[in-house]
Amino acid sequence: MGKPKVLSLGSPSWAGEAFLQNFNNTCDIHVVQPSDRNGTVQAIADARKSNGPFDAVLILMGNGAYERFDQELLGPLVPELKVVGSVNAGYSEFDLDWFNANKIFVTNTIDAVAEPTADIAIFLMLAALRDTSRLEMEIRNGGWRGGTKAPLLDPNGKTLGIIGMGKIGRHVARKANAFGMDVQYYNRKPLSTEMEENLSAKYCSTIEELLKSSDVISLNCPLTSETRGLIGADEFAMMKDGVILVNTARGAVIDENAFIQALESGKVARAGLDVFDGEPKVNDYFRKSTRCVVQPHMGSWTDVAWRNAYQEAMNNVTSVFTLGKAISPVNSF
Amino acid sequence: MGKPKVLSLGSPSWAGEAFLQNFNNTCDIHVVQPSDRNGTVQAIADARKSNGPFDAVLILMGNGAYERFDQELLGPLVPELKVVGSVNAGYSEFDLDWFNANKIFVTNTIDAVAEPTADIAIFLMLAALRDTSRLEMEIRNGGWRGGTKAPLLDPNGKTLGIIGMGKIGRHVARKANAFGMDVQYYNRKPLSTEMEENLSAKYCSTIEELLKSSDVISLNCPLTSETRGLIGADEFAMMKDGVILVNTARGAVIDENAFIQALESGKVARAGLDVFDGEPKVNDYFRKSTRCVVQPHMGSWTDVAWRNAYQEAMNNVTSVFTLGKAISPVNSF
Repeated sequence: MGKPKVLSLGSPSWAGEAFLQNFNNTCDIHVVQPSDRNGTVQAIADARKSNGPFDAVLILMGNGAYERFDQELLGPLVPELKVVGSVNAGYSEFDLDWFNANKIFVTNTIDAVAEPTADIAIFLMLAALRDTSRLEMEIRNGGWRGGTKAPLLDPNGKTLGIIGMGKIGRHVARKANAFGMDVQYYNRKPLSTEMEENLSAKYCSTIEELLKSSDVISLNCPLTSETRGLIGADEFAMMKDGVILVNTARGAVIDENAFIQALESGKVARAGLDVFDGEPKVNDYFRKSTRCVVQPHMGSWTDVAWRNAYQEAMNNVTSVFTLGKAISPVNSF
Repeated sequence: MGKPKVLSLGSPSWAGEAFLQNFNNTCDIHVVQPSDRNGTVQAIADARKSNGPFDAVLILMGNGAYERFDQELLGPLVPELKVVGSVNAGYSEFDLDWFNANKIFVTNTIDAVAEPTADIAIFLMLAALRDTSRLEMEIRNGGWRGGTKAPLLDPNGKTLGIIGMGKIGRHVARKANAFGMDVQYYNRKPLSTEMEENLSAKYCSTIEELLKSSDVISLNCPLTSETRGLIGADEFAMMKDGVILVNTARGAVIDENAFIQALESGKVARAGLDVFDGEPKVNDYFRKSTRCVVQPHMGSWTDVAWRNAYQEAMNNVTSVFTLGKAISPVNSF
């Protein structure tokens, strides 16, 4: 039996030269450049004819333009296709019923994007505390400090409340310690005592407790049916006056109408936002408000995250061929 | 002998209520609100007549509008004036010859602004690595990711070169560790081995060595006759292509013409700037360039920095009266 053949949707070069050399010892890789939906459907069908069959597919970064992952796109690769390794953490774009019916493993990445996303949370936190977006606009418009008279906010000694203490939340906690913040968190279940001690993080047994006692709140939970609209008018009412809110989770975790009212009333002094309900469309309020620091959901867009995600996806593929199972499968059949 | 009388230029309330109560047990404090130069000269002369004489003066935050500190401003308080406690670290605005001739101590602050300034350096570093100013402008202008195709830069695994390893530089090093950076530094003399180990920081014995091997360079040295123009065309030529440069020291440490050329050629990929040569005037290039993240030199403008600086200045004043010498005097006679 020859080496497994892998169809890579996009260049795998971000995995790094040394890693790719190793990968090429195990698998034969063939690259097509995805384009829009129709172009990518055609490119995969063409690759099947000219270079197939393929045992695996790699779905690399920048795949939004040709989603979703289903029979129309990958049908030509059945029945040989055994595994699809994705660089993404989320997998709601996969038609898992179709993959299960055809006994094709789908794998995601677990670690790659956690720390870079936490970095964006810390960036947004510092930016909102120090009011940097407004101050930068002042300079861009030919001014200087925009008449600021009182000092801005220091992270040191402030209480940070983290909602959702998975990998991203724990990186946020660790980094916040370096800025002298007092960290508390709310999660469905508490961390181990050892982990709490390592992160100097205190568990809040209710979200109310966290909301009432935090100077800065960072949302780091996944978007699920339980967390959709988690932060609404009642929750804003519980927060301290002048709180700083940072969202690097998903826009829909916050009720945006209630959020805008909280910003307008001063309940929320400033916010740092990497995500928006309905993105890439952004509510005009957030686009225009100098109380908001805004970023286009690129938490995972770093060289290191891409390298790690590409390597994780490729390690998943080789694991299926060498050990018979994926490292991080998202389906079973 | 009654309690020493202190004339405070501005409200000392940022020192905190408990601290002020203690201070009031030792000194009688009288507050005047400084305005522009002429108004402040008049206010001090009036205070001398109605409430003087005064043994001490406190110079609090926001004093740019009525500098400089000299005979015209403080002459009416001679000969009783013994000490002027300033919340600033720098003291080039003081006519020290006049203070020496009149045997008046001048004191500055040492610790208060170091960590908040380091926070701005870390903020600018993350911003420049992740290209956040350009991306925010894209959203503000109704776009989203501005066609960005490649990933941006991650601090993790990058080499940070710190030029000037005083209090601010050491805070930058400590925080950069939390982002997985490899820290090296150049300073007139190396830190102790113990401090180097605590900060995971490697000494570069020449500035060339640092410039050639750093992915990110942070300037944290004071502006002196030796550091004016420290980073010029020759130094830019030594840097890695695509380096990130952060300046929270003083604008004049960099030759701005050489800097603009280095940004234009791509030698410097992006820069984070809190300081400018000739500020508050900012060279139009930096004001307009999307390669620059710009902030209006407010590194020390946090609630915590103000509290600590006010307390340091007031502790200097009480130390002169209780122990006969200042904690951090800037002159001697």
